[in-house]
Amino acid sequence: MLEKVSFRDTLFEAGLLVASGVDGIYGRSGDFEAVVDGIDGLISRDGAMPGAEVVRFPPAMPRSVIETSGYLKGFPHLAGTVHCFCGDDQAHKKLLQCLDDKEDWTGQQKSVDLALTPAACYPVYPMIASRGPVKMDGHIIDVSSYCFRHEPSLEPTRMQMFRMREFVCIATPEITKAFRDRWVERGHAIVSALGLPVAVDLANDPFFGRGGKIMADSQRDQALKFELLVPVNSAETPTACLSFNYHIDHFSSIWDLKMQDGRLAHTACVGFGFERLALALFRHHGLNRAGWPAHVRAALWPN
Amino acid sequence: MLEKVSFRDTLFEAGLLVASGVDGIYGRSGDFEAVVDGIDGLISRDGAMPGAEVVRFPPAMPRSVIETSGYLKGFPHLAGTVHCFCGDDQAHKKLLQCLDDKEDWTGQQKSVDLALTPAACYPVYPMIASRGPVKMDGHIIDVSSYCFRHEPSLEPTRMQMFRMREFVCIATPEITKAFRDRWVERGHAIVSALGLPVAVDLANDPFFGRGGKIMADSQRDQALKFELLVPVNSAETPTACLSFNYHIDHFSSIWDLKMQDGRLAHTACVGFGFERLALALFRHHGLNRAGWPAHVRAALWPN
Repeated sequence: MLEKVSFRDTLFEAGLLVASGVDGIYGRSGDFEAVVDGIDGLISRDGAMPGAEVVRFPPAMPRSVIETSGYLKGFPHLAGTVHCFCGDDQAHKKLLQCLDDKEDWTGQQKSVDLALTPAACYPVYPMIASRGPVKMDGHIIDVSSYCFRHEPSLEPTRMQMFRMREFVCIATPEITKAFRDRWVERGHAIVSALGLPVAVDLANDPFFGRGGKIMADSQRDQALKFELLVPVNSAETPTACLSFNYHIDHFSSIWDLKMQDGRLAHTACVGFGFERLALALFRHHGLNRAGWPAHVRAALWPN
Repeated sequence: MLEKVSFRDTLFEAGLLVASGVDGIYGRSGDFEAVVDGIDGLISRDGAMPGAEVVRFPPAMPRSVIETSGYLKGFPHLAGTVHCFCGDDQAHKKLLQCLDDKEDWTGQQKSVDLALTPAACYPVYPMIASRGPVKMDGHIIDVSSYCFRHEPSLEPTRMQMFRMREFVCIATPEITKAFRDRWVERGHAIVSALGLPVAVDLANDPFFGRGGKIMADSQRDQALKFELLVPVNSAETPTACLSFNYHIDHFSSIWDLKMQDGRLAHTACVGFGFERLALALFRHHGLNRAGWPAHVRAALWPN
């Protein structure tokens, strides 16, 4: 625990992260962002997927997407919805009175039709489904967004708002499974080239509650999720910086994503956590990026 | 009205924006993002502010910042707060039952300590205030973030989630006022160089309700806000793509932002709306950026 707090404090003192008063919500310095941009460029070069469709989504999406996708079954505790004030002058007066009296004014707000994006790929499935059947050699989407998970933490690697880039594959079972397996290797190579100690391990999502245990076990039994781990906060509990997920037909059955032959598509994704990768680099190569090994700097900033 | 709908449809058809089902929430294509990146680079080059501190904030900030800053007095209707589920297995069961019954399940959530960032500069003032007095020649912050305003619209220029970059000046009244005035000229030059028809006009913020009229009139009387306007949706109602704001001591008195001589600082900011500038470029130069005038392409993508 002490060590975790102290890495965060080190980052605050170095000015790389800026405290906001809420754990997991931080400002990022120009140097931190240069590292994130470097990682983004490296993924584009060394992870290039010819023919991939590039889409960037905002940090919020229709609430119906989080409802339909099954997210609230597995991760109700991590989801965030948006609430807004929809009243008149009279209601506004009441809101301001609550604020003055240090009472909860958010009761004056209503839930609107938006939820915060929990992972970059969630808006992809309804987007592709709306276009009709997927061509038989599949479709790759290159997607990225700010994501939200309600899990305040003292570990700097566990932010409430963070950026994720993903490649999503929507294709036949064979192509989709091969995509996921190929990315385990590619991800390993890309992160190793950054001079980071890397391990890949079977993993499960942090499903909620008593029922969650069963879902996690089933996910492990089927070897659906792998993570690329780098020690950041501690050697004992390394941090998942990439994840490789084979969803079988979870999303395609929900969104009725079909292939041109009429069968359900399968889906898979690889996700890169920008902040976690940046923090791993600062942890292993030092707080001053100018002093990082030449091959790491060349990989991040080739020009 | 018809024309507004049709520009948005044109963008959807060209694949530059991707509909989500909620007005004002869109995916952006790779081409759209290349334009946004180009604008960002142009601002960094032609708008460079030597000595500016670069900080990037996530799309949410502590709820206390929106409460303390006075935002809810002027713009309660635009603000968004984040609500999350904090219950146990039993409560989760109830949530899922509501979802199954198509009832409102968000009543199972509570307001947490986060609000969506309404403008890029809001987290800046408490950050600077926490450091103590500002040096007499002032401090410039280069800030950028995704922002939220609850104003669903058919005009593609009025998004609910959009990106804004700002330069914020915290200094003596003389320096602050000069910063704002200088930026009116610089902003005009930068946007004109993009081959866009530009006008600068006195403006006011969209303050809420009956009391809002008085606040807007006062803001205009004191000439505190100017906007750089470009026709995008229509010639009659041009779109504010940049704004130049002199806050006098509004934020500094709230956050107790003092200069080294003990007097309250003044603050000002210039804000660039990335999506609005990109849409202005697509409107005036065509939907295919490869066909834009050479000088515009050179300004956006010099390499």
